[in-house]
Amino acid sequence: MYPLDKKENCGVFGILGHENAVGLTYLALYSLQHRGEESCGIAVINDEGKISQHTGMGLVPDVFNKDVLESLSGRNAIGHVRYSTTGSSILKNAQPFVISHHKFSVSIAHNGNLTNAVKLKRDLETKGSIFQTTMDSEVVLHLLVRSKKKEIEDRLIEALKDCDGSYSMAVLSEDKLIGVRDPYGFRPLCIGYKDKSYVLASETCALDLIGADFIREVLPGEVVVISKEGIRSIRPFPKRCTSQCIFEYIYFARPDSSIFGDSVYDVRERLGIELAKHHSIKADIVISIPDSGNYAAVGYAKESCIPFEFGMIRNHYVGRTFIQPSQAMRSHSVKIKLNPIKSVLRGKNVIVVEDSIVRGTTTGSRIKTLIEAGVKKIHMRITCPPIKFPCFYGIDFPSRKELIANELSIPEIAEFIKVDSLEYLTLEEMLNAVGKNRDKFCTACFNGVYPTKVHKKTSKSVLEEK
Amino acid sequence: MYPLDKKENCGVFGILGHENAVGLTYLALYSLQHRGEESCGIAVINDEGKISQHTGMGLVPDVFNKDVLESLSGRNAIGHVRYSTTGSSILKNAQPFVISHHKFSVSIAHNGNLTNAVKLKRDLETKGSIFQTTMDSEVVLHLLVRSKKKEIEDRLIEALKDCDGSYSMAVLSEDKLIGVRDPYGFRPLCIGYKDKSYVLASETCALDLIGADFIREVLPGEVVVISKEGIRSIRPFPKRCTSQCIFEYIYFARPDSSIFGDSVYDVRERLGIELAKHHSIKADIVISIPDSGNYAAVGYAKESCIPFEFGMIRNHYVGRTFIQPSQAMRSHSVKIKLNPIKSVLRGKNVIVVEDSIVRGTTTGSRIKTLIEAGVKKIHMRITCPPIKFPCFYGIDFPSRKELIANELSIPEIAEFIKVDSLEYLTLEEMLNAVGKNRDKFCTACFNGVYPTKVHKKTSKSVLEEK
Amino acid sequence: MYPLDKKENCGVFGILGHENAVGLTYLALYSLQHRGEESCGIAVINDEGKISQHTGMGLVPDVFNKDVLESLSGRNAIGHVRYSTTGSSILKNAQPFVISHHKFSVSIAHNGNLTNAVKLKRDLETKGSIFQTTMDSEVVLHLLVRSKKKEIEDRLIEALKDCDGSYSMAVLSEDKLIGVRDPYGFRPLCIGYKDKSYVLASETCALDLIGADFIREVLPGEVVVISKEGIRSIRPFPKRCTSQCIFEYIYFARPDSSIFGDSVYDVRERLGIELAKHHSIKADIVISIPDSGNYAAVGYAKESCIPFEFGMIRNHYVGRTFIQPSQAMRSHSVKIKLNPIKSVLRGKNVIVVEDSIVRGTTTGSRIKTLIEAGVKKIHMRITCPPIKFPCFYGIDFPSRKELIANELSIPEIAEFIKVDSLEYLTLEEMLNAVGKNRDKFCTACFNGVYPTKVHKKTSKSVLEEK
Amino acid sequence: MYPLDKKENCGVFGILGHENAVGLTYLALYSLQHRGEESCGIAVINDEGKISQHTGMGLVPDVFNKDVLESLSGRNAIGHVRYSTTGSSILKNAQPFVISHHKFSVSIAHNGNLTNAVKLKRDLETKGSIFQTTMDSEVVLHLLVRSKKKEIEDRLIEALKDCDGSYSMAVLSEDKLIGVRDPYGFRPLCIGYKDKSYVLASETCALDLIGADFIREVLPGEVVVISKEGIRSIRPFPKRCTSQCIFEYIYFARPDSSIFGDSVYDVRERLGIELAKHHSIKADIVISIPDSGNYAAVGYAKESCIPFEFGMIRNHYVGRTFIQPSQAMRSHSVKIKLNPIKSVLRGKNVIVVEDSIVRGTTTGSRIKTLIEAGVKKIHMRITCPPIKFPCFYGIDFPSRKELIANELSIPEIAEFIKVDSLEYLTLEEMLNAVGKNRDKFCTACFNGVYPTKVHKKTSKSVLEEK
Repeated sequence: MYPLDKKENCGVFGILGHENAVGLTYLALYSLQHRGEESCGIAVINDEGKISQHTGMGLVPDVFNKDVLESLSGRNAIGHVRYSTTGSSILKNAQPFVISHHKFSVSIAHNGNLTNAVKLKRDLETKGSIFQTTMDSEVVLHLLVRSKKKEIEDRLIEALKDCDGSYSMAVLSEDKLIGVRDPYGFRPLCIGYKDKSYVLASETCALDLIGADFIREVLPGEVVVISKEGIRSIRPFPKRCTSQCIFEYIYFARPDSSIFGDSVYDVRERLGIELAKHHSIKADIVISIPDSGNYAAVGYAKESCIPFEFGMIRNHYVGRTFIQPSQAMRSHSVKIKLNPIKSVLRGKNVIVVEDSIVRGTTTGSRIKTLIEAGVKKIHMRITCPPIKFPCFYGIDFPSRKELIANELSIPEIAEFIKVDSLEYLTLEEMLNAVGKNRDKFCTACFNGVYPTKVHKKTSKSVLEEK
Repeated sequence: MYPLDKKENCGVFGILGHENAVGLTYLALYSLQHRGEESCGIAVINDEGKISQHTGMGLVPDVFNKDVLESLSGRNAIGHVRYSTTGSSILKNAQPFVISHHKFSVSIAHNGNLTNAVKLKRDLETKGSIFQTTMDSEVVLHLLVRSKKKEIEDRLIEALKDCDGSYSMAVLSEDKLIGVRDPYGFRPLCIGYKDKSYVLASETCALDLIGADFIREVLPGEVVVISKEGIRSIRPFPKRCTSQCIFEYIYFARPDSSIFGDSVYDVRERLGIELAKHHSIKADIVISIPDSGNYAAVGYAKESCIPFEFGMIRNHYVGRTFIQPSQAMRSHSVKIKLNPIKSVLRGKNVIVVEDSIVRGTTTGSRIKTLIEAGVKKIHMRITCPPIKFPCFYGIDFPSRKELIANELSIPEIAEFIKVDSLEYLTLEEMLNAVGKNRDKFCTACFNGVYPTKVHKKTSKSVLEEK
Repeated sequence: MYPLDKKENCGVFGILGHENAVGLTYLALYSLQHRGEESCGIAVINDEGKISQHTGMGLVPDVFNKDVLESLSGRNAIGHVRYSTTGSSILKNAQPFVISHHKFSVSIAHNGNLTNAVKLKRDLETKGSIFQTTMDSEVVLHLLVRSKKKEIEDRLIEALKDCDGSYSMAVLSEDKLIGVRDPYGFRPLCIGYKDKSYVLASETCALDLIGADFIREVLPGEVVVISKEGIRSIRPFPKRCTSQCIFEYIYFARPDSSIFGDSVYDVRERLGIELAKHHSIKADIVISIPDSGNYAAVGYAKESCIPFEFGMIRNHYVGRTFIQPSQAMRSHSVKIKLNPIKSVLRGKNVIVVEDSIVRGTTTGSRIKTLIEAGVKKIHMRITCPPIKFPCFYGIDFPSRKELIANELSIPEIAEFIKVDSLEYLTLEEMLNAVGKNRDKFCTACFNGVYPTKVHKKTSKSVLEEK
Repeated sequence: MYPLDKKENCGVFGILGHENAVGLTYLALYSLQHRGEESCGIAVINDEGKISQHTGMGLVPDVFNKDVLESLSGRNAIGHVRYSTTGSSILKNAQPFVISHHKFSVSIAHNGNLTNAVKLKRDLETKGSIFQTTMDSEVVLHLLVRSKKKEIEDRLIEALKDCDGSYSMAVLSEDKLIGVRDPYGFRPLCIGYKDKSYVLASETCALDLIGADFIREVLPGEVVVISKEGIRSIRPFPKRCTSQCIFEYIYFARPDSSIFGDSVYDVRERLGIELAKHHSIKADIVISIPDSGNYAAVGYAKESCIPFEFGMIRNHYVGRTFIQPSQAMRSHSVKIKLNPIKSVLRGKNVIVVEDSIVRGTTTGSRIKTLIEAGVKKIHMRITCPPIKFPCFYGIDFPSRKELIANELSIPEIAEFIKVDSLEYLTLEEMLNAVGKNRDKFCTACFNGVYPTKVHKKTSKSVLEEK
């Protein structure tokens, strides 16, 4: 949930036929902000098929003000928050994308990553298509427009049959709201119900905020078509082995959401309990790196009977831009966000629970501030195995060379970040903690076993090449 | 620490003779932001006595950008963050105040509330002084300028001898930095040391962030004069009964600060332990209203052996302006900031630890979301006695009629906020938890015993009357 | 040249292979600002074929600042200022348009109006093209991309062969700058030369400002291809009767430009002389409605020997947004822009020279202020015949019903605007004053004789229909 | 009237008891903008004596928007536009100044320059006054507050009796609007009447715009007190020799205003006629440097029977900030504002009429562009004598060393600016052209005869010294 770590993917939301469609979409995006802090947008189609749209770089409350919200009128809306996994950080890449074709209007919000987008884009350009963005998601629009099918859902299905990779999508036309999850089910997508309107959302926390009832999740490979007639389910794609992103549980999703059939908070607490069972050590207190490590730390404390304490205080104002007043003072900035509590830590043996280690630099800085605060010993416990492989399905890990677990052994990492002991959950232990459906997850970032064929050059910059 | 509750007073900082004076002041204000979110400012005096200054409405990172920081040059600086307790919310009231007199330059940053400011202002106006602001602090400047003394510290002391009420101040001239606490010591102020420069700060968290060593607190009634020659202490005021604001411990100060001789975190944990000792009840879990209730909740959990859980998740993005999309949707906004975790709460008997109840409306809304999330029973425990009296020394409580404990008995409050049981610490228990120097605190908001003579009309609006 | 009259069309500029390409384009757009005040933009292609672009709503100095200009790097640039004649007023419609195709990069800036754009757009959409704007100019891009030709100029020519209407265009690829005027030559376009680089500009005032030498105008129906090898001329289109827009002389172009082979200032002075010859009357002074009537008024004064005076003073600050403080005060706003000089006008018989009358409302308001200033008699003289017909080639006249000369006879107009006499130049007189090439102009707005087949519904809103 | 020349002083306006007081003040400031482009402000006092105020750096339409105007409510208002002649360019120096004293409210808008302000300020500071600005005008406020008189007009008169130099002021209290001109009458101030309310304005163009009737000018040394009872005149000061600023006629005032008993336009035309009478030469055309030279050029043309032409076109968009895209391109910027018309100028002998020459650098650049445009000979004629002495009463001339006429003889100036002949009006001729009251003007900038004792160091920076 930390912006600086840049592990985010995207969040989507959609609602059909509600008087407050725009306001509810705004609220929902607010609650999905953690899934993408770079840009956001809302598109509305009114009952006459007229599209209006507003997108901007930055956070939801900064991009939308009262005037903008009032300028978007219509009973059907979709929204998107984005951290780019493909496409560079420019306004024209902000979603939702919209088209006004003389036969129909359509808007699309995509969470995921199409692994064969480069090839598809070149083919389409050769046939005369003009791309306005450097986003993989635009490929879907061009395929949809070129389809000869009549119904929008059939055009969409035909388009997606050409696409590989991950996609959880909300697609809006003038009288339909369509939700799709790719056959592997990499990213979450759920269905809610509020005041006689169906809604789609990446996570259930959006349903909570707008007061919608949770109906069920969209299934992997399922297309749900919402219209005045109600909700209709289609299963048009060949069946694949379900491969839900386990990193959504570890770090990405909000703890107050329920995804892939389980509460994120509960899963994280069980990960902490599992750590305490298999990687225990004697210590005075258990602390976490706030906030993502909090829930596992509480689990660890419960299981180990070592008391939980708040060892670091998170500064509430840190979301905002912070100026480094000068080079010489850069070292202070790590404490801007999290300040250790000396009176809690001084002279203690401390177990620090953290969700994951990516590059190791942020973790190293945090540990340094704990040492300066006077801890006696630090035992770090990680709620997943070492991350060694890139993700092609939406999590923006750095290159393999920058993943610390790829370059160093666990003892070497411990030495690098200067902790007295360091232990990770094993793949087996992590899956045990997850419990339900333990064979239905993608664990490629830990073991390199990718559920789909991967195209070597599916990096962010490829779509932007000429 | 919650902006919406508007209980803040002010924060001050000062530094003399440091190359990065402006940058360090900026960082320090960032860490003192919780003491005042309405406006902030920095004033600098360079070695030739030239003052430059920047103030603005809003948060520190919004008011200061790189250009502004670079435009402020000088090795001596003071800063201020403010929530108005006197003076209305307008830019010209933002501190620090500065004067360029033909004989000297001086700048002043004040935390506290002068209880006889109205009378002093009228006297000065009758003598021909022109006031530019509606702040009580400006009175000190006029008195200082009218003093016939030669040294700035003697002018300041002469001025303050006429002033009643609370003041923790940083005063900067071209070659001196002066710190003062009123004889009662209502508000905190401490001395730090960094790179051969002395600094003054409202709380030690500012010292932590800039990497300064904590030297000691300024004593009640003490004037410390920092210059090239070092630090000199003066005790010019008649002795008074020390009356430090206990609400700084309960709610106002940051948990990672140490004030009035003790760690705020530790005091809060002890308040929770005291609650568990004297107001225990059987329950499944202990939760807090984040973040100010967190530390007492952990204390309660430790003492009672009932497990601590995170029952509500704080949204990180909430500091920012949030638009109510429409009247009809106002009810959602309470969940924007704190969302209850259903999987943690459903069917449970819950002890909720909260720092204090002021009006009761915010607490009531929070409880409502817990009930909707499915808790079985709610037992609320408050880390202080009922608040019944206004504060004349800097805490912006509402009028007596709006203080719920003034209008309702404890059982009636419980009914109003819809909890199954409600208990407060008694005055005695609270002071026991504080421990050290238990007779050196002002507890007027609980028992109406004011340490100074109070002028009935010292309300915010009086200084603005003609 | 007056924004409020909204008669503008567009301005284009291009330069190939100059170190200061962006800076010169910025300056040139500044000088072409009168051709379009709604939006503007610059696109740059560097020598590796990478496109960067910045567009914005508003005036050139507001859209571009130092940071933006520095972010655009490359030795090849085109620019555009726009008042929409097709497409509504939104940012995405701001030109230049750019495409990054995997085979080539291209950017386009268009002045004019394609009369068959709606049909072309529908055909392209049916074939699967997605339009991102509601501008006719985008049609050219789609046709160009679908062409199978290899060279960019051949793709462009193939695309334009399908297009009817008016176009003066600058098209930039990574190594070529192409200028085109449609076979009728409706809009101006000229070639300049600066520091070994060729430039294209709508008017010569842009060459003056950047210090470029004027080479010649692009001919009607000519394509000029500028590259490292120099300049090459192609004449690929069937020959048409030259139909240059005479309204560019009457009102639109800057007086310090030379277009269609003659100085705009000189033509306007001759129009005034022609008025004095054929529509003289006894009077005390000649004045103009500043600034567009100035030059004809000076001509009238010279020919008639009646002294020229400044009867109205133009407020220099009026380009900026002006708030109507309240409904009741709206009547003052007409004097904000032009204030009559009472001491010049009082008791005088005045000849007022104006370039044209469109709706009659603005002229009427101006006359009213002259009457209030105390003139004795007003004799109005117009430098063109009554405007009765819409323009399909880029001048944004209102609908026929709103054109006053369509609804009222000349005496009725005189009565409506309250002048003592009103005379217009006849078509014959106007063409005599223009002199050179008097049969090579489009005069459709005066006599309804359109040089091309016109599609009845080529109004601004049609392209935006579904 | 040109911002870049920085010769401006200030403009003031006031209105008492009008429903649209704020809107009318806004309009009036718009029309007085040429008197000060640096900052502006409006202060309002409502019928209960409550003051509200808004000031900002920049032009009137940029500083005030609808929200700001609506936030200022009250039936009594004064306004100010300012180019600083004392005090540096910072927001806190923007007028009107306001005071809320417990006995009264008062606001002040000052045009002019107090020549003994430094001494007065030091005296006041020694007595304990705190200055918030570095403006001479603030001195008046402090003296006014220290007066023991009861009525505001008597306080003001007592204060002004200590002040030397120039002042045309509008002073507003809760029930009075007071206008004052210093005994010499350096700056203009007039009285108007609209809808039963009296108004004060620096120039009559403000009356024209708001539709007020012109009553009369405030007399030198007169105090007019406007209240519900009507208008009352006081003459409290010792009589002085009337010394109106002749440079207001030459350059500063708007041509559509009437000041010092005569129309500015008419005076300028007569200055041109006088030039033609005494400094004639054979030539093809007469042109002006727009806009301030226009009216004298028309006079010259009439008298000499040489035709007037527009030789240079003023760019309408130039008020806005203009970025110099790079050092190398700086030379283009002179043409941005005024572009010569080649077809008018080429091969001609030209008489160029200009209002004045200050430093000579701007004039030199203009002449250079005329030469480049191909003129044969340039004969420059100036509507006043050479400027050789600084102004202590409000016109911001540069230091004596920078005044070209101080360093060079007329033939040397002609050579420096590269004209074939250069002639100025003599002092005698200029006063003849002015005509009425020819002995009632200050001509110190031409002949060094200052009407008041001048303090050597009354430069802008002195008040800011410590």
